Amino acid sequence: MALTLPKFRVRGAPAIAIVGCLSIVVEILKENFSDIEQVAKFVEEKLKYLVSSRPTAVNMNDAAVKFTALVKKIILETSATVESVKQKIVEALEKMFEDDIATNKAIGQYGAECILLRIGQSGDNQVRILTHCNTGSLATAGYGTALGVIRKLHEMKKLDHAFCTETRPYNQGARLTAYELVFDKIPATLICDDMAAMVMQTKDISAVVTGADRVVKNGDTANKIGTYQLAILAKYHNIPFFVACPTTSFDPCKETGEEIIIEERPDREMLYLNDIRIAAEGIQCFNPAFDVTPAQLITGGIITEFGVFSPEQLYEELKSRNNLL
Amino acid sequence: MALTLPKFRVRGAPAIAIVGCLSIVVEILKENFSDIEQVAKFVEEKLKYLVSSRPTAVNMNDAAVKFTALVKKIILETSATVESVKQKIVEALEKMFEDDIATNKAIGQYGAECILLRIGQSGDNQVRILTHCNTGSLATAGYGTALGVIRKLHEMKKLDHAFCTETRPYNQGARLTAYELVFDKIPATLICDDMAAMVMQTKDISAVVTGADRVVKNGDTANKIGTYQLAILAKYHNIPFFVACPTTSFDPCKETGEEIIIEERPDREMLYLNDIRIAAEGIQCFNPAFDVTPAQLITGGIITEFGVFSPEQLYEELKSRNNLL
Repeated sequence: MALTLPKFRVRGAPAIAIVGCLSIVVEILKENFSDIEQVAKFVEEKLKYLVSSRPTAVNMNDAAVKFTALVKKIILETSATVESVKQKIVEALEKMFEDDIATNKAIGQYGAECILLRIGQSGDNQVRILTHCNTGSLATAGYGTALGVIRKLHEMKKLDHAFCTETRPYNQGARLTAYELVFDKIPATLICDDMAAMVMQTKDISAVVTGADRVVKNGDTANKIGTYQLAILAKYHNIPFFVACPTTSFDPCKETGEEIIIEERPDREMLYLNDIRIAAEGIQCFNPAFDVTPAQLITGGIITEFGVFSPEQLYEELKSRNNLL
Repeated sequence: MALTLPKFRVRGAPAIAIVGCLSIVVEILKENFSDIEQVAKFVEEKLKYLVSSRPTAVNMNDAAVKFTALVKKIILETSATVESVKQKIVEALEKMFEDDIATNKAIGQYGAECILLRIGQSGDNQVRILTHCNTGSLATAGYGTALGVIRKLHEMKKLDHAFCTETRPYNQGARLTAYELVFDKIPATLICDDMAAMVMQTKDISAVVTGADRVVKNGDTANKIGTYQLAILAKYHNIPFFVACPTTSFDPCKETGEEIIIEERPDREMLYLNDIRIAAEGIQCFNPAFDVTPAQLITGGIITEFGVFSPEQLYEELKSRNNLL
């Protein structure tokens, strides 16, 4: 299935959830409500609308379900007033923001340790990581998921070099990841998307780490277009392929990747750059924003705030932790 | 090995050879020579300079060797004068131009037949071809190599659809191939380089066909950056991968792909588009213009003007035809 949607201002699965909830808080604070039920109804309706904004990432849906349940609980409290409900919603959002950073830092820690353990076996002291798209501070509340792993390796002085792909057509790698890497003075090199295999072949890449927009029950993972082919190329070069994401990216309602709706974006994103036409007039485009990487290609594992799990193991692990919606 | 060279005006391995020789003819016609030996020396020196312009494509070298030999032969003729030598050089160039088009048309015919034969076995009537970079009229004297195969399939009404990659960072696919496909009204879709695997997975691609800048003795092939990874992705999806090129792209002096010099281009090609910066300030780049596809990934074969051969078979085939320099 495919959906075509307009230009976006916020991207990055965890950031979409946070900014979505933040926008509701801003609206709640402006609004005059006659009673607390009206607050609850307002929040629920706005969240439903937000969930429909990007079909592929699941985090907004996760946040919406949790937020809706929370508001229903708050309004049942005996002393609840419109003002106290508003206040508690603001506090919940602040906590969500803090939690996301803590989650990312845990992902960074677990991911770095796991990669070093694997590479340590080959006697290598420092690692070279290839990543795709942007999964850093600009895609989350802060620190980042896949980029959090790179940040952590750099903090530990175990990162030799990071390579980031341009990530056409929206250039999140060239614009955002490259910016974060330069800002943090992490030794890094930008490559075009068609250079990935040559880099794997010649630059002694230790691991490929990407983010995820949605991980389903069997471990299949939707992420930025290009992730699937990086996983194939990593497998061909015997390089472990990791997905780094919070467990809020997990969707236990879908059995396999085939059920994931892949958003298609407007042709214009491919045909123009800063309003200048960069492709021949009259050519048709295919512009899927995401693709699905089958579980068996995620050879390194899925790095979460609870540890690194094989894609096949993740569902059971989260069920045993009562961490499923 | 790597070489960094300045901005180019002519690209496409066969076109480089033709335009290179054409430029010499233009210079010869302007120049006043005192004797025929001076003409020969002039041609030889200018050709040596041209060969150094792009290290990866071999066609300019092939043309230079043949042209130098031809001029040496011409000046030995008893009736040779400066004017008659000039005239014969012009005629030789005109023939080279005509030969290149005939070569391309033969490549188109052999390639189309070979692909249809393979696909016919699966009962499919029409084919879907994915190609990379530009190998059409804008890369040759006319018609094209890989794009010649697509043109021929379209003429035969056997082409369902062509997909062309953008081919970052110089966008030869988006600018040139897309232009040629639209111009010839060939049903075609442009994709970004990171969408190739998803297209192979979902669009029922019959074959991947690319050009070549240099094929060496064991069949390893240097071509536009990104070709190597398309070959890996094609193999993963069980799609035959073809290289289409004239036998002038064959270099029997190099045993394996490891000996091929890969040209590195300036960072600016990746960082700017139409003089507008498109990547974060301060980021380093890696910008190889070519990569090497190992012979065993060229699963469909190498399409030449003499027929389609397995990469391993090509050297013996050309030797038996006395077609080696």
